[in-house]
Amino acid sequence: MAKTTKMFKLVLVILVCSISLNLVFVFKMVNVLGGGDHHYFLELSWTKRAAAEAEYVAAISCSGHGRAYMDGLILDQDGNKEPVCECNACYGGPRCSQFLPSCAADANGGDPYFLEPFWMENAASSGVLVAGWHRMGYSFNFQPFMVMSKELESHIRELHALVGNAVTEGKYIVFGVGSTQLLNAAVHALSPQNSSSPARVVASFPYYPLSKQQTEYFNAVDYKFEGDASLWKNKSDAATMNLIELVTSPNNPDGQLKWAQLQGPNVKAIYDRVYYWPHFTAISAPADEDIMLFSISKLTGHAGTRFGWAVVKDESVFKRMSTYVLLNTQGVSRESQLRALQLIKVVLEEGGKPIFDFGYTTMSSRWEKLNETLSLSRRFTLQKIGAKYCNFLHKIRGPSPAYAWLKCEREEAKDCYAILKAANIIGRSGSLFGAEDRYVRLSLVKTQDDFDQLLHQVKKLISDEGSAKAI
Amino acid sequence: MAKTTKMFKLVLVILVCSISLNLVFVFKMVNVLGGGDHHYFLELSWTKRAAAEAEYVAAISCSGHGRAYMDGLILDQDGNKEPVCECNACYGGPRCSQFLPSCAADANGGDPYFLEPFWMENAASSGVLVAGWHRMGYSFNFQPFMVMSKELESHIRELHALVGNAVTEGKYIVFGVGSTQLLNAAVHALSPQNSSSPARVVASFPYYPLSKQQTEYFNAVDYKFEGDASLWKNKSDAATMNLIELVTSPNNPDGQLKWAQLQGPNVKAIYDRVYYWPHFTAISAPADEDIMLFSISKLTGHAGTRFGWAVVKDESVFKRMSTYVLLNTQGVSRESQLRALQLIKVVLEEGGKPIFDFGYTTMSSRWEKLNETLSLSRRFTLQKIGAKYCNFLHKIRGPSPAYAWLKCEREEAKDCYAILKAANIIGRSGSLFGAEDRYVRLSLVKTQDDFDQLLHQVKKLISDEGSAKAI
Repeated sequence: MAKTTKMFKLVLVILVCSISLNLVFVFKMVNVLGGGDHHYFLELSWTKRAAAEAEYVAAISCSGHGRAYMDGLILDQDGNKEPVCECNACYGGPRCSQFLPSCAADANGGDPYFLEPFWMENAASSGVLVAGWHRMGYSFNFQPFMVMSKELESHIRELHALVGNAVTEGKYIVFGVGSTQLLNAAVHALSPQNSSSPARVVASFPYYPLSKQQTEYFNAVDYKFEGDASLWKNKSDAATMNLIELVTSPNNPDGQLKWAQLQGPNVKAIYDRVYYWPHFTAISAPADEDIMLFSISKLTGHAGTRFGWAVVKDESVFKRMSTYVLLNTQGVSRESQLRALQLIKVVLEEGGKPIFDFGYTTMSSRWEKLNETLSLSRRFTLQKIGAKYCNFLHKIRGPSPAYAWLKCEREEAKDCYAILKAANIIGRSGSLFGAEDRYVRLSLVKTQDDFDQLLHQVKKLISDEGSAKAI
Repeated sequence: MAKTTKMFKLVLVILVCSISLNLVFVFKMVNVLGGGDHHYFLELSWTKRAAAEAEYVAAISCSGHGRAYMDGLILDQDGNKEPVCECNACYGGPRCSQFLPSCAADANGGDPYFLEPFWMENAASSGVLVAGWHRMGYSFNFQPFMVMSKELESHIRELHALVGNAVTEGKYIVFGVGSTQLLNAAVHALSPQNSSSPARVVASFPYYPLSKQQTEYFNAVDYKFEGDASLWKNKSDAATMNLIELVTSPNNPDGQLKWAQLQGPNVKAIYDRVYYWPHFTAISAPADEDIMLFSISKLTGHAGTRFGWAVVKDESVFKRMSTYVLLNTQGVSRESQLRALQLIKVVLEEGGKPIFDFGYTTMSSRWEKLNETLSLSRRFTLQKIGAKYCNFLHKIRGPSPAYAWLKCEREEAKDCYAILKAANIIGRSGSLFGAEDRYVRLSLVKTQDDFDQLLHQVKKLISDEGSAKAI
């Protein structure tokens, strides 16, 4: 009897355990498969492999100084065949754990990795699963020449309305393979056809050099790059000429807001507005120019997605730009469009506060640190950008430019790039932007490791200067 | 006592049930989370939302005559806000369930939906989950100007070796935003720089018109489109001229294998090889030309991905093409590259047998049906393509071209497009390909619904002809 009771108790305990385990499983199943939305209480089937693969690769440890990608090189690491860690500058080893102390600070390129931590934080909302049969055809909804997602277009309009950085009402939107493609598409669209003299493409110094490079390389009959806009300001024959002025505002390299220098019946302007986001500048009023270029690269940091858009007032210009994109690349990758849509959805969450707070905080902190360090020196100065009220952040905000535009002040310091290079700092020479070589552009948008190394080398340079009593 | 025993039995039964349920759950967890690979016994976390969203949209019923996409227009359907069904031609209604009987057969475009069922069948292996922080920068592995996935490149080389359709050993590969971009990049790369006379771009009739349109629209100083290659064959001054011959082989529109017409010290050829896959033609030998263009569009059917590649022998041409792609679009979308990699991995499975068997079977069956139907008429003929041994399929195989190149035979039938149009069949006029308008191209690569409607309208046209005793 006692034995039976004991046995009964044991069985009861096991039963309670088993039922509890079942409850845990039930809870877990709901948790695994539910996604916060009532649609998502589905059991995952065909997506499991892709999802698990993404999680597996994301979980590869790169010591916080790198990351592995699904299309990275496959190497045998610790006995497993897996994609290699792609390490930030100045870190090496299979797990990016080795700091390379003598490493130069590379502040040359514009890779917008400063936003990478934001997307790692927001992994769940920002991932996209692309089905094998997703948008195989050329057109959307089987409409010929419709190569743009209308859903994405409406989210872009919503985004501009939210941020207040551009007027899109009553305007057309063209997608391009980055603003890179749209820049040339716009130049092409504004150039006269079958004219005896080509349009002259100009920009005020310092200017973003891509258009010069494009214009010279593609070597079209209809337009020529002619350099500094201000040279054309007082020319008597400028009034009769076809002039296209490129205005990058905020400017690359110096972060200043710019306006077109030239006016006249045959003068047209293309506004490159890719840096006109709260990360980099105060949003004082919605931009309302006839042609404005934007890109996801400097909005969400996804330069590799190659997705940009133009906001265009004139229908004929819109049509010519669209034809250019069609004949050049048959539109923009549908994967890029799908991903851009998901990323912009995340940007729109909570009224844009999370991403723009993160972007502004990161960029202004970098600027302040660099500025503070350089203020100890008389050899080097940075561009001056004032504090300004931002309609989006609802506050007066200090500068947070994408690039530092550093000047070597000493008379003899004509090659600032070389001076920095000797101090293990790699910038981009002023002459590339049509300015003097006593200027150098230093990128502030890269990884935190990049910025830390830049600051470290700048501090070293300044302190060497101090110890040499060079101040 | 009996009561206790009864109770004990009941508890035991419940325990067995509960443990069984435990086992079911354990099995299910492993099954849900395992993916056939030992890596994948992970619990899914941040990918769940994206995976569930993809499955939710994929499960939207469009009656087998359409599909919903994640970036489709959102409309209120049956009380749910969800992406609309994008219906195949001749189907309508919110669920694509309504057949539109008077609908014209649209055989104009080249949307390669014939492979869509293959990817729906292979959903599990072909999906890709793109993490929010995937490849945000411009370059791969932080190497400047490295905008191509090396892993993808090596899979492309493996693919050509497997299919035996191109020699890639010792050659360079450039990625482009579809072969569309690469075509112009190649023309640009082959044109003389700073020459007094532009290169003349030619093609033998009938030819794929894109390059003519591009060349004329982009209007470069260095090259001009000059039409029919054969006109330059016996010209005395052709030997001293820079000539670029475009050779689409198998040809678009007529599916014939073509070779360059012109030879000489200043003659260069660009081989557009996008149709040189077992879907469309016998693979008799690996192509080994100096510049060969391929694209994923006609290999896997993903035209929307905008991914192509050039296989290039000469290093200087490779460099010029790479510069073109960089200045034009800063490379190809990294999402497109990631997806292309996954799709090519699936293509390579089982030695390529599943996809190429599917492609060849589908295309040859369409050709046979159309050919059989048209053989009842004397008014219309199709191009002749012979049976040939295919080194890949290891058999003699009949024709399976991407397009039918239909000829209106009657003397007075000079506008074949109009004749077909009147019979509710929309093709593409011969004159667009530099041929006579008594030819029309009919696309065979679209959806099965498109093809069925084409066949239906062709049968109707032929039977009307029969009843009118017109034969």
